[in-house]
Amino acid sequence: MTGNLFGGNPLVLELVRLAIAEDIGTGDVTTGLVIRPGAQASGSILARQSGIVAGLPVVEMVFSEIDPAIRFEAKVADGQAVEPDQVLAAVSGPAASLLRAERTVLNFLMHLSGVATHASRFARAISGTGIRLLDTRKTTPGNRILEKYAVAVGGGMNHRMNLAGGVLVKNNHIAVCGGVEQAVGLARAGAPVTLKIEIEVRSVSEAVRAARAGADMLLLDHMGPSEAAEVRQAVGPAVLLEVSGNMTPEKAVAYGGTGIDFVSAGSVVYGAVWLDISMYLEL
Amino acid sequence: MTGNLFGGNPLVLELVRLAIAEDIGTGDVTTGLVIRPGAQASGSILARQSGIVAGLPVVEMVFSEIDPAIRFEAKVADGQAVEPDQVLAAVSGPAASLLRAERTVLNFLMHLSGVATHASRFARAISGTGIRLLDTRKTTPGNRILEKYAVAVGGGMNHRMNLAGGVLVKNNHIAVCGGVEQAVGLARAGAPVTLKIEIEVRSVSEAVRAARAGADMLLLDHMGPSEAAEVRQAVGPAVLLEVSGNMTPEKAVAYGGTGIDFVSAGSVVYGAVWLDISMYLEL
Amino acid sequence: MTGNLFGGNPLVLELVRLAIAEDIGTGDVTTGLVIRPGAQASGSILARQSGIVAGLPVVEMVFSEIDPAIRFEAKVADGQAVEPDQVLAAVSGPAASLLRAERTVLNFLMHLSGVATHASRFARAISGTGIRLLDTRKTTPGNRILEKYAVAVGGGMNHRMNLAGGVLVKNNHIAVCGGVEQAVGLARAGAPVTLKIEIEVRSVSEAVRAARAGADMLLLDHMGPSEAAEVRQAVGPAVLLEVSGNMTPEKAVAYGGTGIDFVSAGSVVYGAVWLDISMYLEL
Amino acid sequence: MTGNLFGGNPLVLELVRLAIAEDIGTGDVTTGLVIRPGAQASGSILARQSGIVAGLPVVEMVFSEIDPAIRFEAKVADGQAVEPDQVLAAVSGPAASLLRAERTVLNFLMHLSGVATHASRFARAISGTGIRLLDTRKTTPGNRILEKYAVAVGGGMNHRMNLAGGVLVKNNHIAVCGGVEQAVGLARAGAPVTLKIEIEVRSVSEAVRAARAGADMLLLDHMGPSEAAEVRQAVGPAVLLEVSGNMTPEKAVAYGGTGIDFVSAGSVVYGAVWLDISMYLEL
Amino acid sequence: MTGNLFGGNPLVLELVRLAIAEDIGTGDVTTGLVIRPGAQASGSILARQSGIVAGLPVVEMVFSEIDPAIRFEAKVADGQAVEPDQVLAAVSGPAASLLRAERTVLNFLMHLSGVATHASRFARAISGTGIRLLDTRKTTPGNRILEKYAVAVGGGMNHRMNLAGGVLVKNNHIAVCGGVEQAVGLARAGAPVTLKIEIEVRSVSEAVRAARAGADMLLLDHMGPSEAAEVRQAVGPAVLLEVSGNMTPEKAVAYGGTGIDFVSAGSVVYGAVWLDISMYLEL
Amino acid sequence: MTGNLFGGNPLVLELVRLAIAEDIGTGDVTTGLVIRPGAQASGSILARQSGIVAGLPVVEMVFSEIDPAIRFEAKVADGQAVEPDQVLAAVSGPAASLLRAERTVLNFLMHLSGVATHASRFARAISGTGIRLLDTRKTTPGNRILEKYAVAVGGGMNHRMNLAGGVLVKNNHIAVCGGVEQAVGLARAGAPVTLKIEIEVRSVSEAVRAARAGADMLLLDHMGPSEAAEVRQAVGPAVLLEVSGNMTPEKAVAYGGTGIDFVSAGSVVYGAVWLDISMYLEL
Repeated sequence: MTGNLFGGNPLVLELVRLAIAEDIGTGDVTTGLVIRPGAQASGSILARQSGIVAGLPVVEMVFSEIDPAIRFEAKVADGQAVEPDQVLAAVSGPAASLLRAERTVLNFLMHLSGVATHASRFARAISGTGIRLLDTRKTTPGNRILEKYAVAVGGGMNHRMNLAGGVLVKNNHIAVCGGVEQAVGLARAGAPVTLKIEIEVRSVSEAVRAARAGADMLLLDHMGPSEAAEVRQAVGPAVLLEVSGNMTPEKAVAYGGTGIDFVSAGSVVYGAVWLDISMYLEL
Repeated sequence: MTGNLFGGNPLVLELVRLAIAEDIGTGDVTTGLVIRPGAQASGSILARQSGIVAGLPVVEMVFSEIDPAIRFEAKVADGQAVEPDQVLAAVSGPAASLLRAERTVLNFLMHLSGVATHASRFARAISGTGIRLLDTRKTTPGNRILEKYAVAVGGGMNHRMNLAGGVLVKNNHIAVCGGVEQAVGLARAGAPVTLKIEIEVRSVSEAVRAARAGADMLLLDHMGPSEAAEVRQAVGPAVLLEVSGNMTPEKAVAYGGTGIDFVSAGSVVYGAVWLDISMYLEL
Repeated sequence: MTGNLFGGNPLVLELVRLAIAEDIGTGDVTTGLVIRPGAQASGSILARQSGIVAGLPVVEMVFSEIDPAIRFEAKVADGQAVEPDQVLAAVSGPAASLLRAERTVLNFLMHLSGVATHASRFARAISGTGIRLLDTRKTTPGNRILEKYAVAVGGGMNHRMNLAGGVLVKNNHIAVCGGVEQAVGLARAGAPVTLKIEIEVRSVSEAVRAARAGADMLLLDHMGPSEAAEVRQAVGPAVLLEVSGNMTPEKAVAYGGTGIDFVSAGSVVYGAVWLDISMYLEL
Repeated sequence: MTGNLFGGNPLVLELVRLAIAEDIGTGDVTTGLVIRPGAQASGSILARQSGIVAGLPVVEMVFSEIDPAIRFEAKVADGQAVEPDQVLAAVSGPAASLLRAERTVLNFLMHLSGVATHASRFARAISGTGIRLLDTRKTTPGNRILEKYAVAVGGGMNHRMNLAGGVLVKNNHIAVCGGVEQAVGLARAGAPVTLKIEIEVRSVSEAVRAARAGADMLLLDHMGPSEAAEVRQAVGPAVLLEVSGNMTPEKAVAYGGTGIDFVSAGSVVYGAVWLDISMYLEL
Repeated sequence: MTGNLFGGNPLVLELVRLAIAEDIGTGDVTTGLVIRPGAQASGSILARQSGIVAGLPVVEMVFSEIDPAIRFEAKVADGQAVEPDQVLAAVSGPAASLLRAERTVLNFLMHLSGVATHASRFARAISGTGIRLLDTRKTTPGNRILEKYAVAVGGGMNHRMNLAGGVLVKNNHIAVCGGVEQAVGLARAGAPVTLKIEIEVRSVSEAVRAARAGADMLLLDHMGPSEAAEVRQAVGPAVLLEVSGNMTPEKAVAYGGTGIDFVSAGSVVYGAVWLDISMYLEL
Repeated sequence: MTGNLFGGNPLVLELVRLAIAEDIGTGDVTTGLVIRPGAQASGSILARQSGIVAGLPVVEMVFSEIDPAIRFEAKVADGQAVEPDQVLAAVSGPAASLLRAERTVLNFLMHLSGVATHASRFARAISGTGIRLLDTRKTTPGNRILEKYAVAVGGGMNHRMNLAGGVLVKNNHIAVCGGVEQAVGLARAGAPVTLKIEIEVRSVSEAVRAARAGADMLLLDHMGPSEAAEVRQAVGPAVLLEVSGNMTPEKAVAYGGTGIDFVSAGSVVYGAVWLDISMYLEL
């Protein structure tokens, strides 16, 4: 497991262990009974649909946690488009260990490849507009880092990874602290200097006020193309603009030419369907 | 947090902590800066679509982990059908704690309610057939117990929870151990006596052979209704029969009258779409 | 550590780490002071009594956790009968690491081999009766999986591994839910379909009623041989019968010919005495 | 859970969680199905044999981990002698939570009370000799702290808790570092100054040499009473003397009058039999 | 523990537990022996030097982990300047629990208050210049979040919290990826959009090139005041400028009027001396 | 990672993982973007100041956790005096892994080498007096074992590692339990026999009383040289004497000839300054 992208990443490692724990339980009864100790096997992981692969480094981690003696060789790289029956990876090692790992490996790979494939379609659909696709914090519990990774693999961009990865001031924050100027002031004075400050706004006038207060980025909540274009006019080119609100590729395309930078869509993760992938073993 | 269904459940607790960890990161920058220490808030969790609610005990765990001072009161119970704008729960407590918990709480609740709603539709669609819907081990990493719980909440039944919760002998197991009789023999002699033994079969003759060998349950892999009916005829009423293979409600209905007991569908989990739910806070 | 039976098993791994933690504390003072860094040693693990060995895969895990550079080679397999002075395994590696591992390794191996030996004697004593020995959930905290594994290694069978591994309806469950029919109905409708349903009964009439309600298995609590035989007569051959209550090999033999399937005994675990095993090192 | 003896003790807390995890697994199927949500129960924990109680603080921790709403009130204190049918504690709370906790609670309490009872008998048997009973590091994996606590509760004393809790130089240590003088010198110069230095010896001459080298305590390995008395004569009163080797109360008594301070016996832990204890619930 | 700033923060909670674990070990021997079970105590935490307090929420967490029955009431807030003998907090509860918590509580509070005090002096020394003090990632293992929090409490600002909290492209990164333009391009295309991009530069010309490439912030490595002023002239007002290199308050003041925004100093953390604080208990 | 001193040490391993977790966060953004997957690098760790090295085994653990493919070869041993520009270790492996590890590795090594260097200076300053330097339990949270290890590496000695590693009876303990005789009696009867019993005293008469009660060691709190000499006279040579109270090398030297054994100083840890050390990589 050399140079694994997620080596030492505590949250990924914890999810991998939790996923193994929930599938192995007190032990794999069937395999323990019918597979002879010491039996070796080899096989391959195959795509059964076309799509974008994501998750191979995690697959390597699962195998390695279950049995370091499993040999795993990726035949494609994350982000690559694959066709049905294409071999994604070759595996070999103790038969019982491979059987114990199979379901967990596939659950990771099918889910993440599904997200990457979904993100890729969304991203390609809007590629002519110059607008970039952003994900959100609407992710499946425990899978945040991997799902956001899959979005990036598919061609989307990541919004903040978590509550520590950016300042995002929403309406009720502003209400509480006395106005957008105060909110930006507090954030500018207290947040880590490496983070941008984004303000959620619902009208052009709010947008102008937030930009004047010093926001680096504005979240235009449920704002249509014409209003968004108006915001761009009003705030000038230096402020990043993101539009959100039940976004789909079709709706996103309509923002072409408005000058916004990003559309964001939680559905890029939670609306994805698993990509069909199998493991074949020769025992 | 009295009498919580998942109290002490180690895998659920670990997922709750992991989900909090991945969202809080090194700390909620925005809230820390703009919310006055000591500020209190109250609010409610509302459905924005109709569906079946699942996950309220987990929501309680998330709040409790983040701040034991948060008061949480469920207004409906898991499994209940809810309508748009219906209040699911009331919450109150330290404003900063509520804001820190919001996204994690909603990610659990929207995802699990989505699964319950999806399972409920599937289960209702086949309710006239006497066939029951089963889930599979195709679940999102780390979310196994909760997703299967949501399936049950929605009216489906659970297949084995993990590799320890049932014996399922597949083709390559049989190939390795020398035949279906040997496989059943080994399983009967060595598995915990509280577990049923299920054999995967691909033809009527295999089914008959597995039943004679003593299987408690057969997994009819990609078998059509007429073939499934034939199996039932051949093996008699004592053996449980499950049909699987890209199952949909429509396809499942076609098995009505064949005498099978279950259809199983991984898509009952991975094909579910999140149910739209919001949290409103008054700061 | 290739193909280790417990590879990736979270509960076993956690116990191994806890056992190491409790023995190493803040560090092995003596070894750190008197053993020269880099010193190598080799040696062997020897039985000093005759019995059945159990726990060698755990021993391998302990060594591997403490120092992956330790080489461990089992000379016998779990389940094998061994004699005094028989070599169970050869070890070599950094002297300080071997000394740090010694006590933890022996505590696992002596304890589990003691359970296997005890179970083996019990199982052999009743082998002529056709009745099988079952363990219970009376196990030493943290050691459940390994102690049950040792029972199986010794020739006993495992009852459910935990509260998720089988339905066992006891008297007070029945009292609460309104009768044995209701209890079986609830269990059949809601439990994972791969689990058998067992009902605890205290009389022949209760047994009959539970069998009619659809129980897969009956737990005959403190029932004598003649009453047990009566139950078998009354419920027919399809229901599994287990007798429990301060069971000993001698008492168990008296059930020969009654038609019951199992006797269960918590003492098969908690009544076992450690098997004497030593490690000899050449420094 | 106020003032719990093991509050914050990381190893005890980890064992408690592991014990709960291994018993709950993916969830208590039976209770979840047949107990009505919200149902309350109360009951008591009763001795069914006479003996010495140990483990009530751990019992409190188990209940608290599973459901903080469970009320637990000890009626006796650890170390107290109890009679059959004596109430050890009263409990009340959510019925499902109590049922989920029952087995884990009893496994701790029966095991630890067994150790305390066993230690108490041993300690009383030798009480006239002025010799004190010591435990060893031969303890059940994960249960070290609690088992040693039970020994102390029963009237025995604790030898070092782990490899960090004392210096114990054995024969092969001495062989490696060039002699007993060198070993004591290294230990005196490098070990935490709060730890005593003990040397294992096999003859009177070795004992004398170790005492002269500055040992605080000698472990007389398999030495008989007359030889032990000779050691005391030779080394004077300042050095603590411990005799070990398949020690029993009967053998220990024979050392009365030899001037030794301690006998040590691993069997005080691993030879203990569980004390019979039950929980009765009114649902 | 209502509204605790670090509630649910996984890294802080883990450090608190680790700190307790390393101090309690297998248990507090002295207190267990000499303090009567049930004894209550009360007392206070007092400053013995003047300085800035930091860490009271962590103190609350330590007490809560060791014994939820301990009552803790802060008398000052983090960030407040305190004088010798000033009471920082009142505590009461089980005497044994308070004694077990004492050292861990003080280690946190003395260390963090030391950092806050040190940062405060540095920040005040440069307050007239308009330049802000930044910390670095040179922090004591495990204490990152708390030490950076203490810097902020003392009046400094936080640079990125970890490798995920900002893009910082150093010389060897640039060398590898083919130039500063490429580096900024890759970062802009792939980093979460909420993060600023900072480039380390060592000359005015490098600074200009990095600014033109689109950097949000420049790290001027070991650059003197006149060179720094030159950079500001060359890159205009929109780019943030940070100077680093064995920075002290004295050296920092010399950058007044150069137009830089920040000086950064690892020593603000690792050069801090503990603030003397005591706990007094009445038993 | 063969024969690593801290192999299997749970507290060290946990700190290593926590330190990695707090620095990697959700992932190293910069490296992930600008370093080509598969790129290899090699380099060295260099001292930039003269001092005593401590922490190389921990460095090995950090690298191994992040990527087992990193090769690490120490060129000096812990405890060795090094000069500026001296190579401490050579490293090579995946470039991205080395960059991810860099800061965590240096934070450990600079901090621990700082402590060892500081302790070494203190120890050497008093080497002519025959008095040994002791550390205390005033250590940075989570870093106890490593900081005490660094003190020993630098030539100091360790006082008890934690509350379980020695009995230390302080004034308020004595007040509570009824006198020094009672305290020593309780400790002698109940503490692990391998631990010494130390009593804190504030006057010669208290010292005499504690020695007569049977203390192994006395902690002379803030006692000057002449009073300390008086204690030695009064209690005879068999009792170990430790003097504490804002101890510095200069003050410690003044105790030469008084007959005390130890001076203890918390500042040996918390007063240490990091040793400057760098890592240079060739990408």
